[in-house]
Amino acid sequence: MERKVLITNCADAQGLISKITGVCFNHQLNIIKNSEFVDNAQGRFFMRTELEGEFNGELIINDLEKVLPSTSDIKLVSSAKKRIVILVTKEAHCLGDILMKAYYGGLDVDIAAIVGNYQSLEPLAEKFDIPFHFISHEGCSRAEHENKMVAVIEGYEADYLVLAKFMRILTPEFVERFPNRIINIHHSFLPAFIGASPYRQAWERGVKIIGATAHFVNNCLDEGPIIKQDVIHVDHSYSADDLAKNGRDVEKSVLSKALHLVMHEEVIVYGNKTVVFN
Amino acid sequence: MERKVLITNCADAQGLISKITGVCFNHQLNIIKNSEFVDNAQGRFFMRTELEGEFNGELIINDLEKVLPSTSDIKLVSSAKKRIVILVTKEAHCLGDILMKAYYGGLDVDIAAIVGNYQSLEPLAEKFDIPFHFISHEGCSRAEHENKMVAVIEGYEADYLVLAKFMRILTPEFVERFPNRIINIHHSFLPAFIGASPYRQAWERGVKIIGATAHFVNNCLDEGPIIKQDVIHVDHSYSADDLAKNGRDVEKSVLSKALHLVMHEEVIVYGNKTVVFN
Amino acid sequence: MERKVLITNCADAQGLISKITGVCFNHQLNIIKNSEFVDNAQGRFFMRTELEGEFNGELIINDLEKVLPSTSDIKLVSSAKKRIVILVTKEAHCLGDILMKAYYGGLDVDIAAIVGNYQSLEPLAEKFDIPFHFISHEGCSRAEHENKMVAVIEGYEADYLVLAKFMRILTPEFVERFPNRIINIHHSFLPAFIGASPYRQAWERGVKIIGATAHFVNNCLDEGPIIKQDVIHVDHSYSADDLAKNGRDVEKSVLSKALHLVMHEEVIVYGNKTVVFN
Amino acid sequence: MERKVLITNCADAQGLISKITGVCFNHQLNIIKNSEFVDNAQGRFFMRTELEGEFNGELIINDLEKVLPSTSDIKLVSSAKKRIVILVTKEAHCLGDILMKAYYGGLDVDIAAIVGNYQSLEPLAEKFDIPFHFISHEGCSRAEHENKMVAVIEGYEADYLVLAKFMRILTPEFVERFPNRIINIHHSFLPAFIGASPYRQAWERGVKIIGATAHFVNNCLDEGPIIKQDVIHVDHSYSADDLAKNGRDVEKSVLSKALHLVMHEEVIVYGNKTVVFN
Repeated sequence: MERKVLITNCADAQGLISKITGVCFNHQLNIIKNSEFVDNAQGRFFMRTELEGEFNGELIINDLEKVLPSTSDIKLVSSAKKRIVILVTKEAHCLGDILMKAYYGGLDVDIAAIVGNYQSLEPLAEKFDIPFHFISHEGCSRAEHENKMVAVIEGYEADYLVLAKFMRILTPEFVERFPNRIINIHHSFLPAFIGASPYRQAWERGVKIIGATAHFVNNCLDEGPIIKQDVIHVDHSYSADDLAKNGRDVEKSVLSKALHLVMHEEVIVYGNKTVVFN
Repeated sequence: MERKVLITNCADAQGLISKITGVCFNHQLNIIKNSEFVDNAQGRFFMRTELEGEFNGELIINDLEKVLPSTSDIKLVSSAKKRIVILVTKEAHCLGDILMKAYYGGLDVDIAAIVGNYQSLEPLAEKFDIPFHFISHEGCSRAEHENKMVAVIEGYEADYLVLAKFMRILTPEFVERFPNRIINIHHSFLPAFIGASPYRQAWERGVKIIGATAHFVNNCLDEGPIIKQDVIHVDHSYSADDLAKNGRDVEKSVLSKALHLVMHEEVIVYGNKTVVFN
Repeated sequence: MERKVLITNCADAQGLISKITGVCFNHQLNIIKNSEFVDNAQGRFFMRTELEGEFNGELIINDLEKVLPSTSDIKLVSSAKKRIVILVTKEAHCLGDILMKAYYGGLDVDIAAIVGNYQSLEPLAEKFDIPFHFISHEGCSRAEHENKMVAVIEGYEADYLVLAKFMRILTPEFVERFPNRIINIHHSFLPAFIGASPYRQAWERGVKIIGATAHFVNNCLDEGPIIKQDVIHVDHSYSADDLAKNGRDVEKSVLSKALHLVMHEEVIVYGNKTVVFN
Repeated sequence: MERKVLITNCADAQGLISKITGVCFNHQLNIIKNSEFVDNAQGRFFMRTELEGEFNGELIINDLEKVLPSTSDIKLVSSAKKRIVILVTKEAHCLGDILMKAYYGGLDVDIAAIVGNYQSLEPLAEKFDIPFHFISHEGCSRAEHENKMVAVIEGYEADYLVLAKFMRILTPEFVERFPNRIINIHHSFLPAFIGASPYRQAWERGVKIIGATAHFVNNCLDEGPIIKQDVIHVDHSYSADDLAKNGRDVEKSVLSKALHLVMHEEVIVYGNKTVVFN
């Protein structure tokens, strides 16, 4: 018996759940878990169905297309581990957390490779026997640098790219190659403190909470669909450095929770938002 | 157009969602929100469906009974406000919070009456024009006292009794009259610090967290199905009194969240547990 | 035996704690609780000392001035209840929470009066026998409206003004009359979603967390020293209205916690920030 | 300039802060951070002072003994990294988290060695070049097994032993060798679900929150002074296995926070409790 996840996203109408689950029933598939959501403001229906059984994928999609609105977006995805390539700069906390969790089974992911624009994290990658590609951005244009990265990344046929504190801005051309497939951790509680030195900004403002945001990257800088956010309480005694140090813990925790959600097909992107079924 | 909530609880089987939503579709009912859960350990299926449309309740139940296993528990309940009677002793924080939230629309509930075994909270009830019944436990047996309360309570035809810091132990006879209809706030994070003086127990143990538990009352003292729990962080500087004072905030917050869930038919009791769809 | 709080705020130097506590010791005052903080970035020392004993206030201040840097800011304040005047518009949740907590002893504060630019909340004020002044902003200029309010407020000799969802912008002239004495609850996690309709902004952005901020009001709109912030987790299923409804709970909780801190002299304002000793 | 932490623990009396900080001032030491606490129920005074300057340790202690009550407990400790030996069984999540945080600077600790009663975690230790000692408990008595461990541990002159999911009960003889120097992570929110299979217990009880507790080990099983606790919210959809899986995240997070506190000399043990200054 196999397991798959069926993701349906279509215009709202009466009877959708009945029709979709009817097709599953006809295919003698067992529903392990089912979640729906209707965005009334946009008249949009979303459903995620975890199925178990013998799958004739083509036939199922076919049967679903017959009963659903013509513009429906239907995906039947395997629940096998997803492959990721991780992009990093110098900071180790997010990469280290992902490597360690993948190692002991706390995160279901297949780390295909790590790409760094500095060599700092190569020793860490080696500990876990993950290929590390050092691709310096120095002495080449942004486009040249990205092209070198793309060449390496495409060789790995990854499902997702994970920016684990990759501190360079990506061009629209790069982003468009991986639509809704690049996951970033923003070192701030978006939309506050967008851009550089968010912890210094937070310190200057005297905030009592700092946070982090994991989001898909699209072509509006810091503005892609948010997957997960979390915060910690801080106080006057935290220097800007203390905020950064404590912020790292939230960053890695939020990134790793977002990865868990995406890896389990629990996140549906629509417009600039996400539906997260968990 | 009316709104109702359909609650189904039956042995798990293939095709249940399809069958139930099929009946809803045949009745031209619109599904506003749907939630399911399968307890694999017990082979039990639970579904909560918010419906909108014209209801022929008897026919719907009838149609559902035809397609569902014979031992299914099917409820179609109105989404009108529930009526509660609140039982209190002397402490005002939980009662006050419920009264105030009901007043400004933060809690959808119809408070029919308040019953107190002391007179302390009568002035508070009067502020909000809620009938207050002072029924002292002094000079009468436990059974006599409860009989007096039952006489008053039954007159109000309440859906639920809420023990808002009612500090007396109820007899099995009383509890049996209101099966899964009595909601209690336990001034502790159950199952820790069961019984008397939980805050002193917590202080003596030096815990770094205190909490509260809202649960249905059954005949195992402090052991009924848990609806909601929450905690706050504390430290060495809290005296037992400070713990109690801060604990009150958690108590009222947890009780009010539990009431919100129960009032919106989001809680299904089975065995000594709850399924909470929210 | 009396209790007072000594607040010291001066340029940092060696021996300050020793000197200040030495003066307290010479006056035979018992230190109940002591908290210090040095802002190294600004070379500033802050200390809050809860004292018990017989106070000769003038002499103590005199003795402290002798041993501290000449620009020190020294306050010896009674721990008696503070008086507040509450300004409201139409929403009841923050006002209701303060009234109820003050009623049952969950908030140590003396509510002198309530001023509203609508009559909506007069019945709530009456329940608790607090004078309510309806001062409409209609048909008069902003300055005229504020002058009317000032005339009423000054009659009450309040320590603090509390804006409990007072939905009008105050002029610099008004704010200057009450320096660091106006406490506002901002219906957002500052500095995100500043200004109008923050819940709609949050919904459109698809955030997974919403929050509230209590701060002192100064003449930069939404920019005064932050006292307290808190957040709740939300998800895609919340409409903009749901965010607002749930946000109200955070608003009242944050405002009431901020009031608790300010009423107990645990907040020191300096520049655009606060030191919060608790 | 050096940094040290002065820990004072004595019977409460007037003037203690003044006397202690006076001695520091006389030694021309700069106070970086100061924290005090008086346990009024026990008449006990606690103070932690972070100092910077040139230290004549013996003379300072001497001067303090002159001015403090005769039974005072005075410690002047270096702020150098502490050395730990970690004891493990088979589970990798706590060990992995400590190793990774120590690697990237998220935890200030010097890991001298790892001792395991299984070989499972040796490869993980090797990745980080930490000596791993496999000391099986099989085929020997509890005392013999512990003696073998003690022989190895004592060779490392560790400040603390960390039980990172070490699943064996220690004898009083072992515990007495390391008084208040053994830190354990208990896979439960103490005092709930003490003992074996806490996640199954939690699942059977239907709790809505699970947690973990880091505590010093003394000779009352599961009853030593609590250092840190935390919880996560769960619901009916978590199986006992899901609770365990999610519980692991809390366990490692709580253990690592407790280590941070202990490593920075922020925890004072007295009786069966802790004062935690942070």
